[in-house]
Amino acid sequence: MDTAALVRRALEEDLGSGDVTSGSLLEGDEKGAGRVFAKSELVVAGIDVFREVFHARDPGIRFEALTADGERLQTGNDIARISGSLRSILEAERTALNFLQRMCGIATMTARFVQAAEGSGARILDTRKTTPGLRVLEKHAVRVGGGLNHRFGLDRGVLIKENHITAAGGITEAVRRVRKTAPPAFTVEVEVRNMDEVREAVECGADIIMLDNMNRDEQVEAVRLIAKRALVEASGNVTLETVRDIAETGVDFISVGAVTHSAPAADISLVLELPRMP
Amino acid sequence: MDTAALVRRALEEDLGSGDVTSGSLLEGDEKGAGRVFAKSELVVAGIDVFREVFHARDPGIRFEALTADGERLQTGNDIARISGSLRSILEAERTALNFLQRMCGIATMTARFVQAAEGSGARILDTRKTTPGLRVLEKHAVRVGGGLNHRFGLDRGVLIKENHITAAGGITEAVRRVRKTAPPAFTVEVEVRNMDEVREAVECGADIIMLDNMNRDEQVEAVRLIAKRALVEASGNVTLETVRDIAETGVDFISVGAVTHSAPAADISLVLELPRMP
Amino acid sequence: MDTAALVRRALEEDLGSGDVTSGSLLEGDEKGAGRVFAKSELVVAGIDVFREVFHARDPGIRFEALTADGERLQTGNDIARISGSLRSILEAERTALNFLQRMCGIATMTARFVQAAEGSGARILDTRKTTPGLRVLEKHAVRVGGGLNHRFGLDRGVLIKENHITAAGGITEAVRRVRKTAPPAFTVEVEVRNMDEVREAVECGADIIMLDNMNRDEQVEAVRLIAKRALVEASGNVTLETVRDIAETGVDFISVGAVTHSAPAADISLVLELPRMP
Amino acid sequence: MDTAALVRRALEEDLGSGDVTSGSLLEGDEKGAGRVFAKSELVVAGIDVFREVFHARDPGIRFEALTADGERLQTGNDIARISGSLRSILEAERTALNFLQRMCGIATMTARFVQAAEGSGARILDTRKTTPGLRVLEKHAVRVGGGLNHRFGLDRGVLIKENHITAAGGITEAVRRVRKTAPPAFTVEVEVRNMDEVREAVECGADIIMLDNMNRDEQVEAVRLIAKRALVEASGNVTLETVRDIAETGVDFISVGAVTHSAPAADISLVLELPRMP
Amino acid sequence: MDTAALVRRALEEDLGSGDVTSGSLLEGDEKGAGRVFAKSELVVAGIDVFREVFHARDPGIRFEALTADGERLQTGNDIARISGSLRSILEAERTALNFLQRMCGIATMTARFVQAAEGSGARILDTRKTTPGLRVLEKHAVRVGGGLNHRFGLDRGVLIKENHITAAGGITEAVRRVRKTAPPAFTVEVEVRNMDEVREAVECGADIIMLDNMNRDEQVEAVRLIAKRALVEASGNVTLETVRDIAETGVDFISVGAVTHSAPAADISLVLELPRMP
Amino acid sequence: MDTAALVRRALEEDLGSGDVTSGSLLEGDEKGAGRVFAKSELVVAGIDVFREVFHARDPGIRFEALTADGERLQTGNDIARISGSLRSILEAERTALNFLQRMCGIATMTARFVQAAEGSGARILDTRKTTPGLRVLEKHAVRVGGGLNHRFGLDRGVLIKENHITAAGGITEAVRRVRKTAPPAFTVEVEVRNMDEVREAVECGADIIMLDNMNRDEQVEAVRLIAKRALVEASGNVTLETVRDIAETGVDFISVGAVTHSAPAADISLVLELPRMP
Repeated sequence: MDTAALVRRALEEDLGSGDVTSGSLLEGDEKGAGRVFAKSELVVAGIDVFREVFHARDPGIRFEALTADGERLQTGNDIARISGSLRSILEAERTALNFLQRMCGIATMTARFVQAAEGSGARILDTRKTTPGLRVLEKHAVRVGGGLNHRFGLDRGVLIKENHITAAGGITEAVRRVRKTAPPAFTVEVEVRNMDEVREAVECGADIIMLDNMNRDEQVEAVRLIAKRALVEASGNVTLETVRDIAETGVDFISVGAVTHSAPAADISLVLELPRMP
Repeated sequence: MDTAALVRRALEEDLGSGDVTSGSLLEGDEKGAGRVFAKSELVVAGIDVFREVFHARDPGIRFEALTADGERLQTGNDIARISGSLRSILEAERTALNFLQRMCGIATMTARFVQAAEGSGARILDTRKTTPGLRVLEKHAVRVGGGLNHRFGLDRGVLIKENHITAAGGITEAVRRVRKTAPPAFTVEVEVRNMDEVREAVECGADIIMLDNMNRDEQVEAVRLIAKRALVEASGNVTLETVRDIAETGVDFISVGAVTHSAPAADISLVLELPRMP
Repeated sequence: MDTAALVRRALEEDLGSGDVTSGSLLEGDEKGAGRVFAKSELVVAGIDVFREVFHARDPGIRFEALTADGERLQTGNDIARISGSLRSILEAERTALNFLQRMCGIATMTARFVQAAEGSGARILDTRKTTPGLRVLEKHAVRVGGGLNHRFGLDRGVLIKENHITAAGGITEAVRRVRKTAPPAFTVEVEVRNMDEVREAVECGADIIMLDNMNRDEQVEAVRLIAKRALVEASGNVTLETVRDIAETGVDFISVGAVTHSAPAADISLVLELPRMP
Repeated sequence: MDTAALVRRALEEDLGSGDVTSGSLLEGDEKGAGRVFAKSELVVAGIDVFREVFHARDPGIRFEALTADGERLQTGNDIARISGSLRSILEAERTALNFLQRMCGIATMTARFVQAAEGSGARILDTRKTTPGLRVLEKHAVRVGGGLNHRFGLDRGVLIKENHITAAGGITEAVRRVRKTAPPAFTVEVEVRNMDEVREAVECGADIIMLDNMNRDEQVEAVRLIAKRALVEASGNVTLETVRDIAETGVDFISVGAVTHSAPAADISLVLELPRMP
Repeated sequence: MDTAALVRRALEEDLGSGDVTSGSLLEGDEKGAGRVFAKSELVVAGIDVFREVFHARDPGIRFEALTADGERLQTGNDIARISGSLRSILEAERTALNFLQRMCGIATMTARFVQAAEGSGARILDTRKTTPGLRVLEKHAVRVGGGLNHRFGLDRGVLIKENHITAAGGITEAVRRVRKTAPPAFTVEVEVRNMDEVREAVECGADIIMLDNMNRDEQVEAVRLIAKRALVEASGNVTLETVRDIAETGVDFISVGAVTHSAPAADISLVLELPRMP
Repeated sequence: MDTAALVRRALEEDLGSGDVTSGSLLEGDEKGAGRVFAKSELVVAGIDVFREVFHARDPGIRFEALTADGERLQTGNDIARISGSLRSILEAERTALNFLQRMCGIATMTARFVQAAEGSGARILDTRKTTPGLRVLEKHAVRVGGGLNHRFGLDRGVLIKENHITAAGGITEAVRRVRKTAPPAFTVEVEVRNMDEVREAVECGADIIMLDNMNRDEQVEAVRLIAKRALVEASGNVTLETVRDIAETGVDFISVGAVTHSAPAADISLVLELPRMP
């Protein structure tokens, strides 16, 4: 939520005690104008933060978005037009691009997974495997890419894992305890590793059942056993190659860590020009 | 430097108002012990931050490092052993791994570039294309992987780019002005795009000359022209496929954005066990 | 979660540039010891924060809890024993008590509501009507008093209210949209004001239906209509006088704003003694 | 003073990673308009913070105050009119009301005490028994309700208590030491428990003498003994029932913890309407 | 009060992304030991902050104070002995000395003014002319040097200045209003510029009267007029040359801005030695 | 860089829970206008921060700069004109002046050193002996006064000192190691104490050689030995009396700690007037 603080810290990280080069070479009143464009095919995400970095550096910078979050761009397509103090633009440029390229990278990879699963009824979920400090932005990029968000953090959802089950003394007892003390605002999800656990989870009333690292046959069997009495999530090392097969098992959700932890940055450039001097 | 604040914010991002699942299911006095290990070949980076996350959550957690930054691990090799309050470990686990996997990913990719350039005399440099807020950690991972750090930020180095040159009215004038006002603690680097600029830069006394997006022939020609009177950096879309060729042109440095902006997370797992109950 | 920051700010609020009186009158090495006890009947909540304030001021203070969160105390019962630097204790005392008295006040009032509804099957829920900045502590006090937490914030649950329904064009459409884009980790709750809305909510699959400001007859009718197909929450100006009646309508939850926004502070005293001087 | 940070933290507490419901249901460009009004008799306090919450969320929200701090309202009287982005208003509403209801609650209770003491010459003082983090706002509400502020914190006044006296070796010595080292900007107040202490305090030149938990007869006797040579404060478990009697003893000040630590929230509502759609 | 944050920020200011020189040259396990001593005559102030900087960098550093705040040292006298990680000491050294040298500088200059006024009965006061962010430390140094603190800030004292008087419509009315609304914890000080104002101030009951930029004759006359009915403060461009004369006019306080805004740093050195390698 | 936070903290330090005097005496809608002027000869530095303090307190204050950083003023010359809410101006005045007077003091003292060295070719450098937390502002004031900045912090330059040399096993080895691991963005400076070290430093390729506490003869000898193969810095207890002599030895830089750690505040006044009331 508080992207303002994030942006401020990122600018501070890069600017520290001040841009030495520009401080030595510019008068301070030079103007510049630039074009931001895609250098490869990508899905746009993060236009708002991108703008915010420039404005946090200098509210006087003029920023015109030429696309919007969710748009699919081809190489060469414009993203934004920026003008104002040359010094301010040079000081904000790298930080702004670092945000935008990462977010577009995530949206683009998410969109590939979504496309691969299209028509199957299965939805792509992200995970908590995000960059420390950037989760809100990265989860936003996933949504923009067509994915659905898994819980945002440990305080924003219930997921009963193996160790919880052992500690509670079984799935049934764990679900019972959670229903008694956790806010009713949360559904109850249980992670399972075999058919016995699938059976117990569905019978004690879990809302969502996560099949952890099961193979395709197990997934098919689990979906059959659950028989719509709970929602089903497949999880574990999903790739663009395997996602379609998994989607067709009939699961409701497929969670993919790679969309946030391993998406390469999108290739985006800002070409800046000084106005001709008379 | 201030990784403590980074770690605190990352934990808060994930924990927020509290881990609902563990809060509902654990008594609070359960103990757990876990093993962290590599699930693919990787170069270790970030052991200190990894430990710091666990200790920030709970100073009572016992953390034993079984490797060190810079070590090259094979699949299955141990990284650390952790024991203590089960609840604390579960609450710190994801955040700690998010830091470690990213840093190992960067060190691993850097090491591949370094290896590809080995023996050529050229050093691999990173760039400012890092994740907002994580630059100190990511640049550390680059060093651990065998790379050298380019300037950390706009306040920690001088790099005269095209727009600076235009604003100052030429390379010679720009270098002169920088020498007059910038701290002598900084070398002066100039970005050039053609042989005329190479010539001007070397003649006006630049310490480092960055060849921006030049092809191999131009790089060879530039190195010849400069003739050891300045250090030379090659820059622009360097890949694992092209880096060797560039290294052999005789440049001193090759800067690679991908090692920080597009390194996939290293595959690392924490397997946690509850002690047998009597 | 981050009560450390909360405690630090509270101490700073009270201490500012330093305790002038103690600074002028104490040498600094005086010791003191004190007893904290209930001056009226109360349910204990907040022992951990209470301790944390003293330790944040001075890690050398010895703090011995003589009761625990959830305990019901009578007038005169002991809560804790404190000893150490007299100056540190005097500087932390008021801030520590301000936390403890408020939290015990909330737990005590919650327990009264819980007791009034006992045996009916209805659970007492809190609301978001908490003191700005203290929600985590206040919601903890509610749980300690036997209540259940409604969602912690706008990011930790879905509650479709009248304005959302109007904007979406109806309850059915609103529920459909939420199911499509909100994390599956959340249940879907809908606020309704009449029987038509009750019917629509239950038919489109709401997980929880909140009866907003309905009278007893309407509540009875709604519970009958819903017929266990969704959970039911009663909401609106519930008092200790009315809560039993509402509980007996068969609703699952009764939300009560007063337990956080209007609970009087519990009466608690710290009596401090200086050791006899020889 | 720094209510901006307070407001920001309060919004963040409630919004966290974002309003899931509004994020799923609203387009983002819906407009709304609302009326804020009193649902019971109250004294207004906190209009500025109330406005600030809305503007911190969205500077574009139009806020029109229809009353002012210090006004006494009847049930149904208007407090403010708000219009702008529906999403922004929904996201700020609860946090804004949480501030306003608490502050009005405090001002209202203070006004009752002030009224009860009216004409006696005694002034109502608050204490340091405020909500951690909100002291500036709560003390403002006390002033608005007609009360006077006791010292804001340990750094903003001198109050010599029992333990200080023991440590210093007597009232006379304590006052002497404070006069020697504390800033002359502070008056010197001494807490006393019996007539001997009253006598010593007045003779050594205390500016204010606080009668701690004395009964009415003792208060009368103390006022007589002091004979205008110092100001007199009565303290200890003052209620609306007892305040008049105390006021008539001739004391100058009566301090009341309940006005901040036990004031119930004022009943205030925001009714929001979407503009008719054509 | 919160010197911890101050120290952390100061270290961060100097260390930023890390000490490049030590990072390149030290293994990290080297040990060092150093002696801190006075290189000119000085009054010690700030030993606690000095220690805190080293411990904030590395809790493992051993710090032994060899003097205490308030001690008067000669050239060559020892201040402290420090030992531990060489890298940590090198990284904390400059920041620690920057605090200590400033505070000793202030205490030393204050002590000179105090000495000059000795025996006259007049006390030396500081002002609010302190370094932004360091007021608590600087006012502490003044006390250590024998001075008394004027109000710490606008919230910790009442001082009615010319503009306030004009706005209120006269001294008498201003004092009346302040008595009615300001906390009784504050004395009331009035700034005056001529004998008419002196007379009005004393007659309307001001506690302290500040003679603003009066010459010696006027000061003598004012002291006579006031005749002990209020305390008297002389203010305005006081120097070491003039302070004695002013002190002998009979004023109670002399405020001196120079002790905080123009005290030269005390000359202090840390000589560090590496243990002989075997 | 982040002077906004600095300014905010400084205002908070002075205002805390609020200006009691103005709060009691002003209605809040009074207007005021003031003139800021030099009361002694000075070089202006810090106009931007000076303005920022007023605007941080109240964006509605009108601020008109009548001079600019770097200007040399005589007693009586105007610096700025300020108008707006009287209360806001009174609340910001002291904090704003505290910044401005310190920065002008530093610029003024720097200019004296620069003038003393004029024509010699030697440049005046500052040091890291700055006020904790204010380094960016103080180093700016040095530049404005005509000085050059030494490295801003341990992360913004390489300076190999005696202890580093001992730890590394000699100057040559130290320089070799730094070249291998430190960012090429930094020059390599070595601190030397005798002619043997001068010789070793110049031969192993140091970029800058710092002559630590050498006398004039040694400085002359060192400059001769180095013979332009490296830049030369003289360091150690430089005063206005000695600086010219040192400058004429032929060194390139002279570093002076006093310009930041011992510059007296410049004498500057704000005279404020209330508009005549009709």
